[in-house]
Amino acid sequence: MSEMGGVKSVPSPAISADDRSHEADHPNSQVAQFGAEQPLRLDCGIDLTPFQIAYQTYGELNADRSNAVLICHALTGDQHVANVHPVTGKSGWWETLVGPGRPLDPQHYFIICANVIGGCMGSTGPASINPATGKVWGLDFPVITIPDMVRAQAMLIDRLGIVTLFAVVGGSMGGMQVLQWTAAYPKRVYSALAIACATRHSAQNIAFHELGRQAVMADPDWHNGRYTDQGIHPHRGLAVARMAAHITYLSDAALHRKFGRRMQDRELPTFSFDADFQVESYLRYQGSSFVERFDANSYLYLTRAMDYFDIAGDHGGVLAKAFVGIETRFCVVSFTSDWLFPTSESRALVHALNASSARVSFAEIETDRGHDAFLLDVPEFFDIARAFLQSAGKARGLTARID
Amino acid sequence: MSEMGGVKSVPSPAISADDRSHEADHPNSQVAQFGAEQPLRLDCGIDLTPFQIAYQTYGELNADRSNAVLICHALTGDQHVANVHPVTGKSGWWETLVGPGRPLDPQHYFIICANVIGGCMGSTGPASINPATGKVWGLDFPVITIPDMVRAQAMLIDRLGIVTLFAVVGGSMGGMQVLQWTAAYPKRVYSALAIACATRHSAQNIAFHELGRQAVMADPDWHNGRYTDQGIHPHRGLAVARMAAHITYLSDAALHRKFGRRMQDRELPTFSFDADFQVESYLRYQGSSFVERFDANSYLYLTRAMDYFDIAGDHGGVLAKAFVGIETRFCVVSFTSDWLFPTSESRALVHALNASSARVSFAEIETDRGHDAFLLDVPEFFDIARAFLQSAGKARGLTARID
Repeated sequence: MSEMGGVKSVPSPAISADDRSHEADHPNSQVAQFGAEQPLRLDCGIDLTPFQIAYQTYGELNADRSNAVLICHALTGDQHVANVHPVTGKSGWWETLVGPGRPLDPQHYFIICANVIGGCMGSTGPASINPATGKVWGLDFPVITIPDMVRAQAMLIDRLGIVTLFAVVGGSMGGMQVLQWTAAYPKRVYSALAIACATRHSAQNIAFHELGRQAVMADPDWHNGRYTDQGIHPHRGLAVARMAAHITYLSDAALHRKFGRRMQDRELPTFSFDADFQVESYLRYQGSSFVERFDANSYLYLTRAMDYFDIAGDHGGVLAKAFVGIETRFCVVSFTSDWLFPTSESRALVHALNASSARVSFAEIETDRGHDAFLLDVPEFFDIARAFLQSAGKARGLTARID
Repeated sequence: MSEMGGVKSVPSPAISADDRSHEADHPNSQVAQFGAEQPLRLDCGIDLTPFQIAYQTYGELNADRSNAVLICHALTGDQHVANVHPVTGKSGWWETLVGPGRPLDPQHYFIICANVIGGCMGSTGPASINPATGKVWGLDFPVITIPDMVRAQAMLIDRLGIVTLFAVVGGSMGGMQVLQWTAAYPKRVYSALAIACATRHSAQNIAFHELGRQAVMADPDWHNGRYTDQGIHPHRGLAVARMAAHITYLSDAALHRKFGRRMQDRELPTFSFDADFQVESYLRYQGSSFVERFDANSYLYLTRAMDYFDIAGDHGGVLAKAFVGIETRFCVVSFTSDWLFPTSESRALVHALNASSARVSFAEIETDRGHDAFLLDVPEFFDIARAFLQSAGKARGLTARID
């Protein structure tokens, strides 16, 4: 199949030499390579070439190529949505949604998930080699945007021979990509499931990301982004960034329920700076485990892409203009306790879609689990996702296969 | 006056040699010294001795010593409540509340504000010299608590010859001290104004503080707390900690109103990691200016003290037990958009005070300015503070002097 010509299977990129031991046990991602004849036109004005996109697929593309679902991952996610992760050895990050009997069942859909451009799990990013120098890109890598990520995904979808995606699905930064897909390629998206996201990053969102970036850049091991040349990694700064982000992913209520003021393995305070409280121990673990699987420069680039995201800004400040005449079926989902992407942001999106006469259903799900709820086992969310996909599938003529 | 025997005026402690240039221009704090015969009994079981408390006063103590008001400062505040700051050259941090014509007018009250124990503006803290070694304490300084801070303040009040304070007033960590004063010394507090605070630190509060501590400790210049020996200061880590804290002091709405997604000195993004957005530039400034006036180890100790604070925990888990039979008049104030110390925490306090049959008035003030509102020009807050203090003053027999 000629469209697949540039696709080959390569080992999943590993963060450190130690991780190579996992390779034999776990599926490797496929990689689509794009040469000089197919540069990626970036919003910053640069043509990125060559570049590659690493991706996973689950299920089979049907004969009329109408059952393809693209899943867009969040800031620290990757393409390993429903298989054991080659670096961490953990289950796929969205096995609650994707898998046999789940709302996205590979028996019915051809499911694709690609590492975003700028990422660090096989797609070209700041940790890749700059062909002009033969060295790691580092901060010489061009700053990318959410539209750039989506443009690269569209090139991958072309390569796979798919014209129209049955669904584009994602939460958080993944949800931003879903919205960008519908704004940029409305004819190529039959249905869109956008979860726990927004059409732009708020000042508070930007503030938290800037905090994370400053934490990374404050680490002397960051070496102005050239840490790989030194054979080190700014683990301490990246861990602090991750801790900050992690607090924003949970609600106050969820933290209270999970940890409250409970002490770690003791009843009385140690009167020291040890992790007396369980929540301290938890955060430290979140920080230290993250740095084993994520590249610090990628963290800078992807947070920057989210900060720049502003669909209305790209359409003269009027959000509805982004969706004029769109025929995509939308399902927008928010969670009551999500303070990173609060329901008000989803409502603004829904109002804009209504103003554009788009088909849109909206669900605000009652939960105290915060932004992270989209990754957790929240049955009401799965029920809504399943119902939306089934209804869209029926309209698309996928019914017989799905039911 | 014999009680004043240990009080002398010393230069305000300066953070760096450069700051010494300010000394000639600005008022120096008074310092109360406590020798071996008066150790400070700390909750951790250690007797701290010798120690000293640096403080400012405004106004005159009246003949029957009934007009003394103690102001308790917040985490990064100090005793310079209503005078030009000797290090920064800025106005006092609460001149909105304290000063001629203000609710706390030095013409009527004898106003005291002391740097907390563990602080870095002249009271004994981790940046002080450990008499046992002749070197800076660093992490050898004992971990202190909010009750320890209040115990030291009570010793200062004794030294000043004051039995009963007309009022104890404070916001945030200062509010915690107000509450601790009433729980520990109910007979010595005629009225208590507790603003934007809580009777315990929540899991989310602890998480943000732990993030800040980890940012400081991740800075190699921290040197396990012994940075002074190296002649350096962990500026980068402390700046990151301050940025994180600063986000929590503002509401999402306040950040949106102040900055939104506005760019800094330009209209289009730079596609770089410069501070494109105004909110980024603002945060960076908050971080870098803070490190010029604050000691990193003090930041660790004071955040730890707040984390440990839990009045109910000190009273068998029942908050009301802390206030049984109390005659102090309380005024509790919260701000609608304060997500660090939300109104629900103030309500829990008010319920406990009601259960103890305490006199309490409660005001939740509508503002979008977040936790920081208590330091800002919020007229409704001043009106409430003024009315509460006037009413309590009348009951205390201060009327003639105040009106």
